[in-house]
Amino acid sequence: MTNQPGKTGKIYLVGIGPGDAEYLAPAANNALAKSDVIIGFRAYIEQIDGLIAGKDVVSMELGQELERAAAAVDSAYAGKTVAVVSSGDAGIYGMSGPVFRVLTDRDWDGQSPEVVTVPGVSAMQAAAAVLGSPLMQDFCAISLSDLLTPWEKIRGRLQAAGQGDFVVALYNPRSQRRQSQLLEAREILLKHRPGTTPVGIVGDAFRPGQRVKITSLQDLEKDAKSVDMVTIVVIGNSTTYLHGGKVITPRGYEEKTKKI
Amino acid sequence: MTNQPGKTGKIYLVGIGPGDAEYLAPAANNALAKSDVIIGFRAYIEQIDGLIAGKDVVSMELGQELERAAAAVDSAYAGKTVAVVSSGDAGIYGMSGPVFRVLTDRDWDGQSPEVVTVPGVSAMQAAAAVLGSPLMQDFCAISLSDLLTPWEKIRGRLQAAGQGDFVVALYNPRSQRRQSQLLEAREILLKHRPGTTPVGIVGDAFRPGQRVKITSLQDLEKDAKSVDMVTIVVIGNSTTYLHGGKVITPRGYEEKTKKI
Repeated sequence: MTNQPGKTGKIYLVGIGPGDAEYLAPAANNALAKSDVIIGFRAYIEQIDGLIAGKDVVSMELGQELERAAAAVDSAYAGKTVAVVSSGDAGIYGMSGPVFRVLTDRDWDGQSPEVVTVPGVSAMQAAAAVLGSPLMQDFCAISLSDLLTPWEKIRGRLQAAGQGDFVVALYNPRSQRRQSQLLEAREILLKHRPGTTPVGIVGDAFRPGQRVKITSLQDLEKDAKSVDMVTIVVIGNSTTYLHGGKVITPRGYEEKTKKI
Repeated sequence: MTNQPGKTGKIYLVGIGPGDAEYLAPAANNALAKSDVIIGFRAYIEQIDGLIAGKDVVSMELGQELERAAAAVDSAYAGKTVAVVSSGDAGIYGMSGPVFRVLTDRDWDGQSPEVVTVPGVSAMQAAAAVLGSPLMQDFCAISLSDLLTPWEKIRGRLQAAGQGDFVVALYNPRSQRRQSQLLEAREILLKHRPGTTPVGIVGDAFRPGQRVKITSLQDLEKDAKSVDMVTIVVIGNSTTYLHGGKVITPRGYEEKTKKI
């Protein structure tokens, strides 16, 4: 439904989760249903194709995030209700960032247009669910892409993650252009945890073509070719172990030695 | 449906998200529908009351996690299909930990019973969605509860989070018994980021009674009384800012100074 003339519109920042309709929350469905305009990366839009018949759909390519955020904000100021679609969670390396950036630049008053975020299951959580329970102690998410963050900053975070014995989930771990960052991440973490530390590599979790490889921090070097931009790499902490083919981080720090 | 006699059952580790039915994915619904037995903390079970009529329901109190995990594993080995319910994501400080611990102790073969995890939106993501987009750069989740992790280990993680300039989401930040940990966390982070750093405190995100308080790292000391065990405290990194009442971490490190 279009808003009344003269009234400012609304922006839904929608996380559609892994992509499978089974993981699309009713709140996400409703936001799409209420929107006049749907904006998102082409592959995500195609995943929800059945839901958006009759809508004004603006597909985008990777790298066009700021342009599409600006288009969404323009539409909302013109009175439309707009859904900006991210895979996973819009607030975790998703479209919330570009949209709030544009809103800030436009001196948004925080109310018009209204912005509502519908959170979704992030890629890290989908990967963890497939692997077992690797995120059961304190963890961090680090993107290895140096497009928006200087590599020095990312390197410092990897060192901190090693020092703090965090479980580490790597986003954007490796691409055609960027092959060295994953190997450097491995070397930094090897200074703080054993080579036997379990590592899970998951691509397209809960989607057709799901790929899972379980390896170790030591062997990540030779298994790096299993890693690409759409995989998540989960690296255990010093207590993480393998059992029954699952990557398991015990909740309690002393649990490995106790029985119930 | 009950499995055939002699056949081992199945365990669903179900994350129900914030609790509102709007955020319950169809996959979670289906897992509950397929289960003979539903096990979970009483308050979460009550949130999904309408879905579980006619099931064998085992409510649990806080602190009974290992006992209920053992009950779930026993039922599954006896051929039942069992759903173990967590709020948020079962794999993030949820029931996946106790269940995999019991399975490990029982020398589980990884296949019988089959274990399927249905991920959900974690409390940190629900809090972030309400606050704006605080998790838009590398972040970490840290539980301040020292019941299962020694405080020395948690303190080390807070120091590492400060050094790495991670956005920090604190779980179990403060209780009647534990009041000092949050203040110590604040002091550690103040060594690495300014007192003006935005901090969001969110209780019961997307639930009746939702509470949101936005403060700063400096003022967190006097606002600590807004924090209890069921709140999430999100502390920005050195680039996080407030605009329009929202807590915003720009995706790119240099964004604050550029306009589009």
